[in-house]
Amino acid sequence: MVKAKKYILHKRFVGEPKPSDLKLVEEELPPLKDGEFLAEAVYLSVDPYMRPYADVLPLGSTFIGIQVALITESKNPKYPVGKYVVDAFGWRTHTISNGVSTPGDIPVIVLPDLGDLPVSLGLGILGMPGNTGYFGFLEICKPKAGETVVVTGAGGAVGSLVGQIAKLKGCKVIGIAGSDEKNKWLKEELNFDHVINYKTQDVEAELKKAASEGVDCYFDNVGGEISTIILNQMNFFGRVAVCGAISGYNNRNIKAGVVQFPLVFRQLKMEGFVVRRWADRWMEGILQNLEWIKQGKLKYRETVTVGFDKMFNAFVDMLRGVNQGKAVVKV
Amino acid sequence: MVKAKKYILHKRFVGEPKPSDLKLVEEELPPLKDGEFLAEAVYLSVDPYMRPYADVLPLGSTFIGIQVALITESKNPKYPVGKYVVDAFGWRTHTISNGVSTPGDIPVIVLPDLGDLPVSLGLGILGMPGNTGYFGFLEICKPKAGETVVVTGAGGAVGSLVGQIAKLKGCKVIGIAGSDEKNKWLKEELNFDHVINYKTQDVEAELKKAASEGVDCYFDNVGGEISTIILNQMNFFGRVAVCGAISGYNNRNIKAGVVQFPLVFRQLKMEGFVVRRWADRWMEGILQNLEWIKQGKLKYRETVTVGFDKMFNAFVDMLRGVNQGKAVVKV
Repeated sequence: MVKAKKYILHKRFVGEPKPSDLKLVEEELPPLKDGEFLAEAVYLSVDPYMRPYADVLPLGSTFIGIQVALITESKNPKYPVGKYVVDAFGWRTHTISNGVSTPGDIPVIVLPDLGDLPVSLGLGILGMPGNTGYFGFLEICKPKAGETVVVTGAGGAVGSLVGQIAKLKGCKVIGIAGSDEKNKWLKEELNFDHVINYKTQDVEAELKKAASEGVDCYFDNVGGEISTIILNQMNFFGRVAVCGAISGYNNRNIKAGVVQFPLVFRQLKMEGFVVRRWADRWMEGILQNLEWIKQGKLKYRETVTVGFDKMFNAFVDMLRGVNQGKAVVKV
Repeated sequence: MVKAKKYILHKRFVGEPKPSDLKLVEEELPPLKDGEFLAEAVYLSVDPYMRPYADVLPLGSTFIGIQVALITESKNPKYPVGKYVVDAFGWRTHTISNGVSTPGDIPVIVLPDLGDLPVSLGLGILGMPGNTGYFGFLEICKPKAGETVVVTGAGGAVGSLVGQIAKLKGCKVIGIAGSDEKNKWLKEELNFDHVINYKTQDVEAELKKAASEGVDCYFDNVGGEISTIILNQMNFFGRVAVCGAISGYNNRNIKAGVVQFPLVFRQLKMEGFVVRRWADRWMEGILQNLEWIKQGKLKYRETVTVGFDKMFNAFVDMLRGVNQGKAVVKV
């Protein structure tokens, strides 16, 4: 008999989530049926999207999230014992699955052989955030060599990847993040052309200096006022991929300068996306990012918090921007 | 010797334009050279875009605008005496032109034979606003039969056309305008399915009732808070054509609810445009709208102010939303 621990949504978040909004409970798992396998969480992901999606999650549900789990028992030959599976099992230590993902969720995958790389990358650059950056940037921004690209949330898992892919594509890259330490990493290790600290610098003035030629592509992780400032510095026919709006996840009532002015006068195209729209090309993104890592062309950072009992802390730290690169929890 | 009267931009507009911001002056025109023609303004247009564009117009310039003018003298066989020409000559009574439009401006055209229809339509449904509605809606919203379309500024020249084209394409149409009289016309004469008066009704609540199935296409003439409310009621993969932002033309510092939330969660595509991007297809739009009018499928309204000395009043009335359908001035 396997006992799973899991976090359920106990109360609606109001503003920043509180520890008492979640509840840790135990669940006895039944024996496996044919076609099922048992997976034991090894790494769990905490991501910005969890904050807004929690607002529509029924109370009492297992809290949402993707994990890398080791298959420890199996009655499904496609999911053999000893392999790692990546799926949106939620915040739980043990899961029985038949390998069919919830409709609308990301595909369940067996992690390809990563060689010496840690399996936690299946939650980051080789998983949902990796594909978010890969497809969202390339398919929506359609960057061309020589263009100027701005990325917000640049120190995060998605933003740091987008900036590097933009560099690979021959673009000039300006990253905006919330700490000098993040920015130092972006500039010195990831070769971003310019970085701006939105907490200590005047984004409008700094961007005018860094991108006097105007901005062609903007990968928007934050929404709100900073995004309006960037839109107002875009060139005609610029493209904006809207990936998130973390600036307002704890308070949806924020207001910002009206985007319709730059949209009309500069004829901008702005498109929001959720990465699962590319579910049928899922492995393409993972394998391309893996190849670039092996070639030394992509770097990543992880902030690893140890302990399933620290899930909540890791989550709130990520929302506060404490993490550098992908935030994960090691069980 | 021909004397032209013209309005020049004398002072920058601050908030709502004041009569003293413009100045009426006289200009002596030289004799025609080969390739030139003399055109006498018959109808002049006042349009929302003039307000924001004036902010970047050099002081002392002739105020911008399109007019229908009668060719009264010509040394250019392509522009024969007696024909009507439509071009962005600005707010002036007489103009010498060689038929070459300013780069980036709309094409100079000789008005096709309109039969019994008034030549003023060359400023409205058979001119720039007509093409704005025709191309902007069809090319950016890409409406499909059975979809639900919302139009703001629905009582204006562009909005009233967009709603009618949407009906022609088999869509359900909801118009939002600022007076019951406009809305009565939209509903009773143009067969809009629903109308909302944003000045007296709760747009969010009324739209939920009128479009409980969600909104697929939004043609945005106004920007600002009303647009955010509409975006929040759109269906997945909805399309938004951003044509204008009249709600903030007199005050660019307005703030509105953040659009990135609905853009991401509903995966919306939002694109701003200026109609001259379809300059190479200019006559297609005019001839299609003309055909629909002759078939009785499109109706239009004009608010005609008489007198070149009333240009300013017509302009401000239009910004205040006093006009119904296209606002024009008859010299």
